[in-house]
Amino acid sequence: MIPSNWYNIVPDLPVPPPPPLHPATRQPIGPDDLAPLFPMELIRQEVGQERYVPIPQEVLDVYRLWRPTPLMRARNLEKSLGTPARIYYKYEGVSPAGSHKPNTAVPQAFYNAQEGVRRLTTETGAGQWGSSLAFACAQFGLDCEIWMVRASYDQKPYRSALMRVYGASVHASPSPVTQAGSKVLAEYPGSPGSLGIAISEAVEVAASADDTRYALGSVLNHVLMHQTVIGEEALGQLEEMPDVIVGCTGGGSNFGGLVFPFLREKLAGKIDPVIRAVEPEACPSFTRGRYAYDFGDTAGLTPLMKMHTLGHDFVPDPIHAGGLRYHGMSPLLSHMYELGMFEAVTRSQRECFEAGVRFARTEGILPAPEPTHALAETIAEALRCKESGEEKVILTALCGHGHFDLAAYERYLSGEMEDFALPQERIDEALSGLPA
Amino acid sequence: MIPSNWYNIVPDLPVPPPPPLHPATRQPIGPDDLAPLFPMELIRQEVGQERYVPIPQEVLDVYRLWRPTPLMRARNLEKSLGTPARIYYKYEGVSPAGSHKPNTAVPQAFYNAQEGVRRLTTETGAGQWGSSLAFACAQFGLDCEIWMVRASYDQKPYRSALMRVYGASVHASPSPVTQAGSKVLAEYPGSPGSLGIAISEAVEVAASADDTRYALGSVLNHVLMHQTVIGEEALGQLEEMPDVIVGCTGGGSNFGGLVFPFLREKLAGKIDPVIRAVEPEACPSFTRGRYAYDFGDTAGLTPLMKMHTLGHDFVPDPIHAGGLRYHGMSPLLSHMYELGMFEAVTRSQRECFEAGVRFARTEGILPAPEPTHALAETIAEALRCKESGEEKVILTALCGHGHFDLAAYERYLSGEMEDFALPQERIDEALSGLPA
Repeated sequence: MIPSNWYNIVPDLPVPPPPPLHPATRQPIGPDDLAPLFPMELIRQEVGQERYVPIPQEVLDVYRLWRPTPLMRARNLEKSLGTPARIYYKYEGVSPAGSHKPNTAVPQAFYNAQEGVRRLTTETGAGQWGSSLAFACAQFGLDCEIWMVRASYDQKPYRSALMRVYGASVHASPSPVTQAGSKVLAEYPGSPGSLGIAISEAVEVAASADDTRYALGSVLNHVLMHQTVIGEEALGQLEEMPDVIVGCTGGGSNFGGLVFPFLREKLAGKIDPVIRAVEPEACPSFTRGRYAYDFGDTAGLTPLMKMHTLGHDFVPDPIHAGGLRYHGMSPLLSHMYELGMFEAVTRSQRECFEAGVRFARTEGILPAPEPTHALAETIAEALRCKESGEEKVILTALCGHGHFDLAAYERYLSGEMEDFALPQERIDEALSGLPA
Repeated sequence: MIPSNWYNIVPDLPVPPPPPLHPATRQPIGPDDLAPLFPMELIRQEVGQERYVPIPQEVLDVYRLWRPTPLMRARNLEKSLGTPARIYYKYEGVSPAGSHKPNTAVPQAFYNAQEGVRRLTTETGAGQWGSSLAFACAQFGLDCEIWMVRASYDQKPYRSALMRVYGASVHASPSPVTQAGSKVLAEYPGSPGSLGIAISEAVEVAASADDTRYALGSVLNHVLMHQTVIGEEALGQLEEMPDVIVGCTGGGSNFGGLVFPFLREKLAGKIDPVIRAVEPEACPSFTRGRYAYDFGDTAGLTPLMKMHTLGHDFVPDPIHAGGLRYHGMSPLLSHMYELGMFEAVTRSQRECFEAGVRFARTEGILPAPEPTHALAETIAEALRCKESGEEKVILTALCGHGHFDLAAYERYLSGEMEDFALPQERIDEALSGLPA
């Protein structure tokens, strides 16, 4: 059954998370600072202290197009591994855009439409978020304008085509339609772009038009809260409670969405699972980053957020899991990691694709590169169970399909896929650029 | 709930369908003629007279990876049309390969494995069938070798990549590894291939190796029977019985799979829906073809089948619905059409893509080009209801997603998509090549 509330974990935490700061004053930011970019209801949710926020009927009416999503026992994968572990996966790839992202795109579009906004802007890297917001805007009659990182725009024409089918306008970023984009193009005419530049373009357009707001696909508290429909559904669908919960982390919304409801039960003493975040070796913000105030974007336009960061200047190697190539991490998850509420590990690109191919051949679904990180760790855990004989119950988040990532799979199968070592010097150098 | 039996409509027909004939003797073919190509159990099913065939547990264990599939009310589409009609769609795109094809690929792989076959060969055009058989072979440990029409192989690299992820070998056809392919390549080194040539290659390899058999993705009786899981599930899921049932037809397996269980209820006098097949204007076998004995392939290697055909030499214009570009039609459906058990209409390519875009913007799912034919007719029916005020219940088959067809959608959105007129002379000329 689709839950009727989102779960806000903040009031259940033993210590409240540190606030975001205004970059100039270094004072906690307030609603007025955010009003040019977000509608009031989302700002309220961002700082809200209610444990449960009712999901509006209009949002439920869209969720029901693909929710509840399947919770499956991976019997064929278990058999192929010869493990006594029982593996469950929650599959979000059945959504129209193919990932968990519409869970927050839909309420974001709804609240904006309700407050009279006519147009949403956003940036997108690999394209999952852009196609999700384009779909959500089509549902509520909003215009949608998307800046897609030029390198992805050229490599993944199907993704921008999907956004256009949903009615969105898509620019390759840097674009000549903004000052931020024009400035970059003047200096580097052939710039492949970056998420940081694309954010600057989307924010510039949103901030300069009264009827336009901006939407973000991860990192923020309200985004993670919207994703808790994943974990709430899973709690109701599971026949047995997990001993281990594994999810991949980029900005943190897929991971938070799955684990927050389980953490609530854990805080209440009802269950006691090990909870584990998996990040790419090439972009290890939890495991090798610093917990410090940093900007959310490369250009330094956003508020300062206390989070695990590799430094806003850090440019990860070009791994295929585009959704995990973010220098920072959800401030809320970062705070909880510091409180010891979950652990974190890394996996290399090749072992992730190996896990993805094994999963496709056994369970049928072709996973997106991002959740192959969770699958690689799940398989490793199941093999540890095989060694020890433990019949652990493992739950993992399969947050999207890989239908638009087949070029990467082809590369893996041909033996050409690279692993990237990340020397400590590169991290140290990027961290030296943290705001004082 | 997943049904436990497939439904065989043949014994319920008022007149038995005419048999396939041996091309040399013109006598009905027997099991021995088919044994080099198919395992005994599938040959038994092809000619079987039992109304119900139990689905083996091993097949059910694979079906449960994505079945039962969703049966959805298209409320947003209804609202956008302003129709009093109630529209339901049965969505098969949630399968691993993205269409209804695995419903038959899985039992075909299972029966072959059970009878000791080690390798299956097949041809594929757009790639839906090839990826379905590759997935099914991975489930039962069979090797899978696929000849993919060169033009599609070059245009749709993601499709062959998906087959390889599932472990299959994929050749562009014509290929140098068969005599049939070599012969074509010697004459036309740059040949783009055709389904007819690809069939010849797959059949040649299957017939020449003891441990190898051939698999076909549509047209044959056992294939349509396997697809009846679609209609059986829909019967159980619907809250009200349909007044109109609409499905697209290429070889006929998606249409037969949905409508046969409803036709059973209709023959028993329990319901009385109008049943309507939709074919492309560019390949109208029901509506403009002849009901005659013809070959199933271009080269004339298969048995002669009595069916609606445009002539085995007919080459349809290059519409994007590759799965509907077949000169013939299921002999079983052709027989039933002659008995007046359903009607048929055509739709043009542009109105189909228009329907696909409207569906994506309202219901979220991006449809494959094939089922956009059913959607275009469904929308037309719903608009007729708007005119008349009738509150009809319409059921349609959404047999696959269009994630690999976004280049075609982009073409439609840019205004470059063509419609194809089909002059009568082209049909007459192809029909003049029918076997005497």
